[in-house]
Amino acid sequence: MHFASDNSGPAHPKVMEALIAANEGYAMPYGAESAMEGVRERLRDMFGAPDAAVYLVATGTATNSLLLAAMSRPWQAIYCSEVAHIEEDECGAPEFFTDGAKLALIDAPDALMSPDALRARIEATDQGVVHGVQRGPVSITTVTERGTVYSLDHLHALVGVAGDFGLPVQLDGARFGNAVAALDCAPRDLTQGITALSFGGTKNGLLGVEAAVIFDPELAWEFELRRKRAGHLFSKHRFLSAQMAAYLQDDLWLDMAGQANAAARRLVAGINRIPEAKLAHPADANIVFATFPRAAHRRLREAGAQFYSDGSMEGPEDALLRARLVCDWSATEADTDRFLDILAG
Amino acid sequence: MHFASDNSGPAHPKVMEALIAANEGYAMPYGAESAMEGVRERLRDMFGAPDAAVYLVATGTATNSLLLAAMSRPWQAIYCSEVAHIEEDECGAPEFFTDGAKLALIDAPDALMSPDALRARIEATDQGVVHGVQRGPVSITTVTERGTVYSLDHLHALVGVAGDFGLPVQLDGARFGNAVAALDCAPRDLTQGITALSFGGTKNGLLGVEAAVIFDPELAWEFELRRKRAGHLFSKHRFLSAQMAAYLQDDLWLDMAGQANAAARRLVAGINRIPEAKLAHPADANIVFATFPRAAHRRLREAGAQFYSDGSMEGPEDALLRARLVCDWSATEADTDRFLDILAG
Amino acid sequence: MHFASDNSGPAHPKVMEALIAANEGYAMPYGAESAMEGVRERLRDMFGAPDAAVYLVATGTATNSLLLAAMSRPWQAIYCSEVAHIEEDECGAPEFFTDGAKLALIDAPDALMSPDALRARIEATDQGVVHGVQRGPVSITTVTERGTVYSLDHLHALVGVAGDFGLPVQLDGARFGNAVAALDCAPRDLTQGITALSFGGTKNGLLGVEAAVIFDPELAWEFELRRKRAGHLFSKHRFLSAQMAAYLQDDLWLDMAGQANAAARRLVAGINRIPEAKLAHPADANIVFATFPRAAHRRLREAGAQFYSDGSMEGPEDALLRARLVCDWSATEADTDRFLDILAG
Amino acid sequence: MHFASDNSGPAHPKVMEALIAANEGYAMPYGAESAMEGVRERLRDMFGAPDAAVYLVATGTATNSLLLAAMSRPWQAIYCSEVAHIEEDECGAPEFFTDGAKLALIDAPDALMSPDALRARIEATDQGVVHGVQRGPVSITTVTERGTVYSLDHLHALVGVAGDFGLPVQLDGARFGNAVAALDCAPRDLTQGITALSFGGTKNGLLGVEAAVIFDPELAWEFELRRKRAGHLFSKHRFLSAQMAAYLQDDLWLDMAGQANAAARRLVAGINRIPEAKLAHPADANIVFATFPRAAHRRLREAGAQFYSDGSMEGPEDALLRARLVCDWSATEADTDRFLDILAG
Repeated sequence: MHFASDNSGPAHPKVMEALIAANEGYAMPYGAESAMEGVRERLRDMFGAPDAAVYLVATGTATNSLLLAAMSRPWQAIYCSEVAHIEEDECGAPEFFTDGAKLALIDAPDALMSPDALRARIEATDQGVVHGVQRGPVSITTVTERGTVYSLDHLHALVGVAGDFGLPVQLDGARFGNAVAALDCAPRDLTQGITALSFGGTKNGLLGVEAAVIFDPELAWEFELRRKRAGHLFSKHRFLSAQMAAYLQDDLWLDMAGQANAAARRLVAGINRIPEAKLAHPADANIVFATFPRAAHRRLREAGAQFYSDGSMEGPEDALLRARLVCDWSATEADTDRFLDILAG
Repeated sequence: MHFASDNSGPAHPKVMEALIAANEGYAMPYGAESAMEGVRERLRDMFGAPDAAVYLVATGTATNSLLLAAMSRPWQAIYCSEVAHIEEDECGAPEFFTDGAKLALIDAPDALMSPDALRARIEATDQGVVHGVQRGPVSITTVTERGTVYSLDHLHALVGVAGDFGLPVQLDGARFGNAVAALDCAPRDLTQGITALSFGGTKNGLLGVEAAVIFDPELAWEFELRRKRAGHLFSKHRFLSAQMAAYLQDDLWLDMAGQANAAARRLVAGINRIPEAKLAHPADANIVFATFPRAAHRRLREAGAQFYSDGSMEGPEDALLRARLVCDWSATEADTDRFLDILAG
Repeated sequence: MHFASDNSGPAHPKVMEALIAANEGYAMPYGAESAMEGVRERLRDMFGAPDAAVYLVATGTATNSLLLAAMSRPWQAIYCSEVAHIEEDECGAPEFFTDGAKLALIDAPDALMSPDALRARIEATDQGVVHGVQRGPVSITTVTERGTVYSLDHLHALVGVAGDFGLPVQLDGARFGNAVAALDCAPRDLTQGITALSFGGTKNGLLGVEAAVIFDPELAWEFELRRKRAGHLFSKHRFLSAQMAAYLQDDLWLDMAGQANAAARRLVAGINRIPEAKLAHPADANIVFATFPRAAHRRLREAGAQFYSDGSMEGPEDALLRARLVCDWSATEADTDRFLDILAG
Repeated sequence: MHFASDNSGPAHPKVMEALIAANEGYAMPYGAESAMEGVRERLRDMFGAPDAAVYLVATGTATNSLLLAAMSRPWQAIYCSEVAHIEEDECGAPEFFTDGAKLALIDAPDALMSPDALRARIEATDQGVVHGVQRGPVSITTVTERGTVYSLDHLHALVGVAGDFGLPVQLDGARFGNAVAALDCAPRDLTQGITALSFGGTKNGLLGVEAAVIFDPELAWEFELRRKRAGHLFSKHRFLSAQMAAYLQDDLWLDMAGQANAAARRLVAGINRIPEAKLAHPADANIVFATFPRAAHRRLREAGAQFYSDGSMEGPEDALLRARLVCDWSATEADTDRFLDILAG
């Protein structure tokens, strides 16, 4: 019953096989290995972007920060939701990589920014007046940090607002696969008007690889320099491209994301049947936020379930605490069912 | 005949096996997996440093820069050789991670700094006067960028100079195993008086892992924060600790380094028998710099040999060009012998 | 009728005389001139802080940022009001000087943070967990950006909250004199528990000098290095110390602040008599925010009055717009009265 | 006998008068005051550059660093002499302002870089290869830190080398007036092909103002943002423009520089007559480096002369020590003659 995070699950066996296969003899380092060419072409095809630059980075934090740094200048604001991963969970990485840009936070119920709120925040930035920071990129996350997924219309409306001001847009797709699976759309439906995408793999069955897909090729060389300068260019890069190639092969990424989402739907269905339990946010993909009594939190932990609870295990039995449950590709029906059984009490 | 770099060779099969074994079920992320405890203890034992902090980082550039950043302040000088990797091959990573510290370069014939030159450079830094940068850490590389290895006496003398000024010392041991194998000493013989070590694995049979061994535990928390902030904390950290555990098991690291050094010695012996070829620097470990005629460079390349040459393949046949030949753990006698045959003409 | 800012008024004649007097012959540069010793002693006496370090800086933005940088590390949060000058009006200077610390904004009606809001924001920062930024200094401004002044009890309560978490406190006293005059207290009443103070001069009758008063002497040397490194150490420093010496002489600073506050009180009294006009925030010192009809804004501008209006001069006559009126030491009764006459219509 | 630095002398009386005159009533802040327009036009005329952007900054360190930051990116090299002020005397300010660019040092006998040495250093920077820093701006100082002045041919040759690589050039003219006076040329003769000039005033009779003259107007807005962000935009900017206006009026700057140079020539003539004394570098402008016996250093100091000596006053009487003697505009014949008398013994 492992629902702590999709980064604590295993890599897919096909990915491990690809790693082993990549370990034959010598290979050109630093991304010059032949497998990288295939990765690049596959992603360009998938997004209908023949000119896109594609790079691999081993962590999501680095991918987001490197992209934002290449898209901004230090005196700019980066617009994002008030609960964005880049704001809350990266120890100031965007500020470090950008040499001190400022995250401008936007109210986001269920972690979803409204186009109006985004527009208002951009307009509040005094462009062209030297006293304040200037307008910079917009960063959008989907699947969001609260488990919701922007509808395509909603997403396109946000991109449209950025476009009204001529601002670039970064899409934090650490769980891009889960978003695509949830929307049942084409990958390129999510990237219309997007300047650069963090195409996540680590949370979805890889050992540790994300693709930075840069739709504006003018940013490519700067990204390469920043990646090297930040120690994120791997010499034995073949082990990154092998993972990503396996991930893209026959849409393994989408299959895995679909499995994770299905496990979450099973949890949601069960929670909806339990009177004391309630969803805290719409659970659109593979993350479920739910509240249920402390007693149930304790019962589950004692049975070995792993997940995050808001608040201490000490206190009144019936107090409602929020839990975060994340499903990865390897979650089993047996596990979700057992979890629900114990939760039901 | 792959002598371009020890980062273009394969990982050791035992390392791949360890990766596969680590891919069972769920594991705590971010270094909390149980394997990391073993890695930590093994390195502490090896270096006789029960209080040392140990962290894993995926690239050598990041390891060096994170350590130097934790050991310095932005207004300090970092003393290093004029050909140090941190000066020449990291695209300014130390300046980025340290928020703008200044590398103070020291003359280094054969890439070896003399204690007198180090002392003179430190003394030339006006400590306590606000107009210049202040004295900061000393960074020493061994195996050096020219293939030489500091003798223990030489190394201890450099550390002693730093100590005379109360300055911390970072040891860039990207090829630490090759240095230990060359000196036939105990690992801890190289780390007397060292503040922090980059213990390399990537160039010596891993996919991509270095250990940051911090002998001053007061730097540990800052290192952790900097690592996270720089996007170098891996969520699926088990795949780093598995590599390092296999590397340390039964001194696999030292065996691999010994094999690489032996291959280089074979190259050296052969070069010494060829009248037109000459060593450019003492080849103490697994890197050989040699000069030989352009015609031989061309012959070798045409036969598929991979290595770096200083200068173009166009020009007079008999002009002497310098070559860099690097042996990794997987270099075979057949390869070195064939290379030497073609070189001999 | 100049109410645009207290930085557009003249310097006091005594300050100009002091400048002239300081221009005799040669003087030691960089703060070693003898006048600086007197400034240091005078400020130490005034604040009852015999160990305080005192430095002069020419702009308020630099003073705030240098202090915050010396008091924080790049991975920390700096707590401040949502409308703090450091957040809104310094083009990201704190982020630049701190190498990327994050401003953590706190709700502040009338620009006043409540102790509870400050405490809640600090507690929301996950101290000791590597994923988020860590707790850092608290920055408090008084006179605030909305013209209010913290009562001593309110201020001490905020300082107490910071103390509960062991966090240092910076006081942005760009208008420190106006706050002291408003509270009719001793200067040291405002600095109990404060780590470092920006003691403003530029907005209160100097040409361009602030004093950084650092009550924790351990921060002094770092401040000196940061000041130099940021190009804020003046060679002909005597022209800074001469200004500050004249400012402190016979409490000229307090006299000037009192005059500015008196002019603002006169404006307030007049506004309170005009039915269409209304204070937008309590006007505790020398800044008055008031709303009145667009028609009055236009009338005043046509008569040459200078002040900031929120919104365009185009639109319905009777729409209420907010105005910011700032009085400096040189504001005259004639000017305030004329302004009020025109405002009354 | 004040020869310690041209920054320890007084401001010119006409400058003080201009300050007083500028202190009338209210003025627009931040450079919008009317006097700034005149300064801008005067400098554009002087340099034959109708499109040049002109900004005022209070210190030379900030002027140099702001210009270099606007002209470079963090992963670039800044080429300069090994004894450049930006390398030796600014506590790493260029690294701070540029977010970590690397100063690439060039051998410079008498502080003069040769075109060949500059070219070789640029060529040694691996442009377009991600592993090393990339080529960035060239910074040239004249009058140099050793008192020499580049001939126009020499200067143009350096600018030509930069141009061959498409690199921008910054001219550190902290003593620009002294250089022009020494060469007896037009100001614009020195700025052919220059991208941006630090036009010094502080060392030449101002209280503290330099002009940043940016010949490439595309850099202007970035410079403005960087200046603000670094706390170097003065609210009461009128006191900067008043100084610079007086400085430019009737070529006061050139008169003062000529006086300083004349005083230095008088010192040189005297030194040449004294057998024990010898010039250490050609003294082309207002700085004289000379060696003479320690006994004479001591005699001069006991008589109150102020200047820098290389080495301690303790030691053998006849040991030759180097002295640095800097003349400012206010140096008198009486002072230079008395100095020479005591030196002669």
